[in-house]
This record gives sequence, C-alpha cells and structure tokens, in this order.
Amino acid sequence: MKILVIGAAGMVGRKLVSALLEAGQVGGQAIDTLHLADVIAPEAPQAGVPVKTSAVDLSDPDVSVSLIAQRPDLIFHLAAIVSGEAEANFEKGYRINLDGTRHLLEAIRNAAGEGYRPRLVFTSSIAVFGEPLPAVIPDTQEHTPLTSYGTQKAICELLLADYSRRGFVDGVGIRLPTIAVRPGKPNKAASGFFSGIIREPLAGQEAVLPVAEAVRHWFASPRAAVGFLLHAAAMDTALLGNQRNLTMPGLAATVGEQIAALERVAGPEATALIRREPDAVIAKIVAGWPQAFEATRAKSLGFTAEGSFDEIIRVHIEDELSH
Amino acid sequence: MKILVIGAAGMVGRKLVSALLEAGQVGGQAIDTLHLADVIAPEAPQAGVPVKTSAVDLSDPDVSVSLIAQRPDLIFHLAAIVSGEAEANFEKGYRINLDGTRHLLEAIRNAAGEGYRPRLVFTSSIAVFGEPLPAVIPDTQEHTPLTSYGTQKAICELLLADYSRRGFVDGVGIRLPTIAVRPGKPNKAASGFFSGIIREPLAGQEAVLPVAEAVRHWFASPRAAVGFLLHAAAMDTALLGNQRNLTMPGLAATVGEQIAALERVAGPEATALIRREPDAVIAKIVAGWPQAFEATRAKSLGFTAEGSFDEIIRVHIEDELSH
Repeated sequence: MKILVIGAAGMVGRKLVSALLEAGQVGGQAIDTLHLADVIAPEAPQAGVPVKTSAVDLSDPDVSVSLIAQRPDLIFHLAAIVSGEAEANFEKGYRINLDGTRHLLEAIRNAAGEGYRPRLVFTSSIAVFGEPLPAVIPDTQEHTPLTSYGTQKAICELLLADYSRRGFVDGVGIRLPTIAVRPGKPNKAASGFFSGIIREPLAGQEAVLPVAEAVRHWFASPRAAVGFLLHAAAMDTALLGNQRNLTMPGLAATVGEQIAALERVAGPEATALIRREPDAVIAKIVAGWPQAFEATRAKSLGFTAEGSFDEIIRVHIEDELSH
Repeated sequence: MKILVIGAAGMVGRKLVSALLEAGQVGGQAIDTLHLADVIAPEAPQAGVPVKTSAVDLSDPDVSVSLIAQRPDLIFHLAAIVSGEAEANFEKGYRINLDGTRHLLEAIRNAAGEGYRPRLVFTSSIAVFGEPLPAVIPDTQEHTPLTSYGTQKAICELLLADYSRRGFVDGVGIRLPTIAVRPGKPNKAASGFFSGIIREPLAGQEAVLPVAEAVRHWFASPRAAVGFLLHAAAMDTALLGNQRNLTMPGLAATVGEQIAALERVAGPEATALIRREPDAVIAKIVAGWPQAFEATRAKSLGFTAEGSFDEIIRVHIEDELSH
C-alpha cells in the first residue's frame, strides 16, 4: 500500500511516521512506499521501504494534483495553520486550512473516474466547538467555532462528509482532544500551560500556571493521537454511514487533577516547580473552551485514549524521557 | 438606506421586494434605492424609489465586487442552486452556493477598511440537518446534511458567523422551514406534494399524495418567510453574540393534519381531490427529513410563524387566490 502523509514534519506527523514504519503495515496490508509532505520538507526517516519527502504549498491546486499523482491508497491530512496564526492572518488561514483541503479533495475527486477512492484520514479539532456549551458535550452538539481555525476545521469536516457520501473519497475526520504532554520547548499558545506544568517540572524546570486549578479540559497523549490515526486508517468505514466525523475519546481533567497526578508520579519536588501567575487574558480564552465530551460513538467504534492523567504523564516519560 | 437583493427573481425574493416597497422602510430607515439581482434579470417593480435590476453570475468574483460597489447598507442573499440541481451537478452547486457566497463575503471584507459593514441576511435551510435526528430538534443540534445543497448551506452559515465575529459583516443566517403553500405550478421537487395537496384542490384540480398521512414535517408560509427576512434585517444583532444562525420557527404538521385543515377550510369536496399514489422513492427521501424543531432562540428574538395549518391555508387564499 502507498501512503501519503501531509503535515509529516509536525509533532504528531513525525510520531505517526515512526509508528507506521515500526508496524510495516496498516490493517494487515504491507506498506510499500511512504510520501511525506509538509510546508518544509520532512526529514527522511530510516526505513526499509522507499520514502519520498516534499516541501509543498497546499494553497496551490497543482500541488494536490501532484500529491495524488501516485494514487496513494491511504492519505493522512494533518497539515494546518495553527489557531493563533489563522486568527492573526485571516487570508492565510483560509488559504491553507480551507482551500488547501478543498484542493486535495478536488484532486481526489478528479481521479475518481478511474475507480480511485483512497482512505483519507483528516485531523479536525475540538476547536469546532465554542461556548455556550454543556459541561459534557454530546456527539450531536452543533459546531459553533469561536476562531477562524475552528471554522475552517468545521467546514472541512462538512466537505469530507459530502465528498465521502458522493463516493469520491473514503473519509474519516477525527476531532483531536488537546494533546498533552506535548514534548519540546514551551510555546506561546494559550493552551501551552496544560503541557508546560507537567513537562517543565519533570525536566527540573519552573512552569507558569496562568489559570485556576478548577479549570477543566479534555486531553489525550501524543501516543493516543497516533493510535486514533492508525485506527481511523484501518477501520471499517461502512460503520460510519454518512457521519464521517468523530469526536475522539479523551480524558477530562482539571488543572488541580493534573497537578495531583504529577505529584503521584514525580513527587512534591516536581509540583513545587509550578508557579501560580494568574493571567486574565488566558483565563478568559480558556473559559470558552470545551471541558469534556461523551465521545460515545468513537469509543463504540474502537477508538481508545488514556483513562487517567497519571497514565498520560507516564506515556510522556516513556516516550520522551526514557532514552 | 440602499438595499441589495440577490436572488430577487425567485418566489420569496419577489414577495420580499413587494413587502419592502410597500413598507418603504426597514427598521425605521427609509429605503432610498433598491438593487435587484438574480441569474436572470428580475422584473423591475412599480416603485417610488430608483430600482436597478441585474442579471448576474455569482460564481464570478468580479460580480460580487460590482454588487458591493454602491455599498448597500442591507443585503438579502437568497440566491441558490436548489437541492435537486446541486445534487445532480456537483460542481455547479459548489460554484454558486459555496463559492458565490464566499465571493460576496470577500467583496464585503475587502471594503471593510473603509468602515463598511453592511447587514447581510442569508437564507439557510433545514437541509443542514439529516438523520439520525430526534423527533423535535433542539437549537444546538449538529449539522449533518445528507445533500450537497445542505452541506453548502451549512458551510455558508459557518463563514457568515466567522466573518461577522471578525467584524467584516453584520450577518444573520435564517434556516427556513419548508415553505408551504408554494404558489404556481407543481414542480418535481421531492417536497412538492406538501404544497400540491393544498394548492391543487383549492384550484379545483387533482393532487397526488405519494407518502403516508403519518409523515410529519416543518412548515411556514411564504408570508412568514418574508416576515423572517424583514425581522432579520431590522433586529438588534448584538443579541445574537457569535451565534449568527437561527432555526426559524414553524409549524410541525403531519400530512393527515394538513388534509384535516384543508377540509376545515375548503370542505370535503377539496380533500376528495387528493389521490393517494404511494411512491417508495419519495417516501424514503422524506423519511430522512427533519420533523419538528424547538426554534426557542428565534422565537425569543421575535421571529414568528403560523400557529396552525388552517392559518397557512388561509394565508395562501388571501395572498394568492383573492385577486
């Protein structure tokens, strides 16, 4: 099977590529070739199969045509301008996140006459939801995004469902929880502290907590995110009917519960490194975010995530700190 | 105030224009000029103010720029490729219903630097909803359209909300119920019989009923639809917050209740003209349609519709058969 990963240079993309190469197969079908694309050319991994890397600009329709030229059987589309940038640069966000995805769908549709109908796994986001929201969000909740990024993801979900219903593509859209613990450097995303208050103390460094401990949010580890992608790639999509987009399972935890988990896993010397520095701007942004989801449908379809924040921390230690 | 009506040649568009000219004002502001656009040039009505008519192709971005050139204060965007045609012609549906609306929003955004921010009233549809659905659909129901038309309407709602949130336009999207009783000739739309079983008997003609009397659906009269548009044009949009799209109120009625209302209004000689001719294809299509809505939010914001199907029939008689 030929696999194309768009957005392969990002954190989840790199972990996905490693997992694919380690497994050597998807759903029992051996991987024959891997094509890795991103806005900067992804690093070519050590691999026993041919790997091609490409630097691409998805806003150019010809790029999608050339990405589809080899007729990949399985496409992971993870590429996106992130939330903050899509908010700061309205045109760029729509050009990449909406038009880029539509060009990809159109390139696939235009090859459909040849009987081509690849599996397309698309990463959406819980940013499609915005207040007012219930404390636990059902699978049937309306999408009322409060960012241009969330709007673009919600639109792409609708396109994915319609192109799938019409038989042009075999799409699965997965709404990722907030990914924690993100490895790497602290960043300026409003959500950054959710990872920072775990990652920095585990590395013996101070972390800033800008919100109250009562703040509740929805998490899964990077390892769980890769698991979602692989499951979406191999699942029986006949079970989805026309509802091609799914809220992924995750773990609802308050910041206080995160800190208690950190103390259980790494002791009070770790939690002592968390410095409370309330930030009204961040608190206001985070107050509009989803807190918890039912995710009943995805769980019944076999998607799984961590059951405790302790487990999320242990996954981080195993995957990032144990080498 | 300068008003632009896109889709002015359609049934609702023509009634809207008549109502605007009769009122002479919107929300207390006198109407100065009227620009009527459609894919074929609308007939110019008798009017005491300057009326311009244009034949336009919304899929051309320059068309939207020229429609916005006079900086209309109020824009009604009713134009669309209808459901059946958008399903039969995938590219045309996306080109007009999605790209056309986006070109309009972009033309407005590109004029926003001058402080321009018009009220834009957009007609969406209950076609954004598709099974599985609860018997009575809440305002927070997810959009899971089962047609390309419904997908395009759902996407335009998301765009309208985002462009409004960003301050480029002052948008209100209204999801119209199925409009009954539609005046004019029978058409081949799957929903045509809902009007036909009232309209034809009132005109002394036979009508075909292809579904069971238990089929339940959601209705408002053409007069109510014009009322929604005028209310959306004049309402205080600060009350909408970031949720710019509203399911309009309507009346849930079964086909049996429609027929009983017809008998009360026009007697058994009218209902005797309804011929049962079950059609499995139409029955299957209609089975996936919404049956009833809460529409709590729109009602609390002052939108009103008929309270009984008898009233819907009387509106048809007054507006269509009394001259």
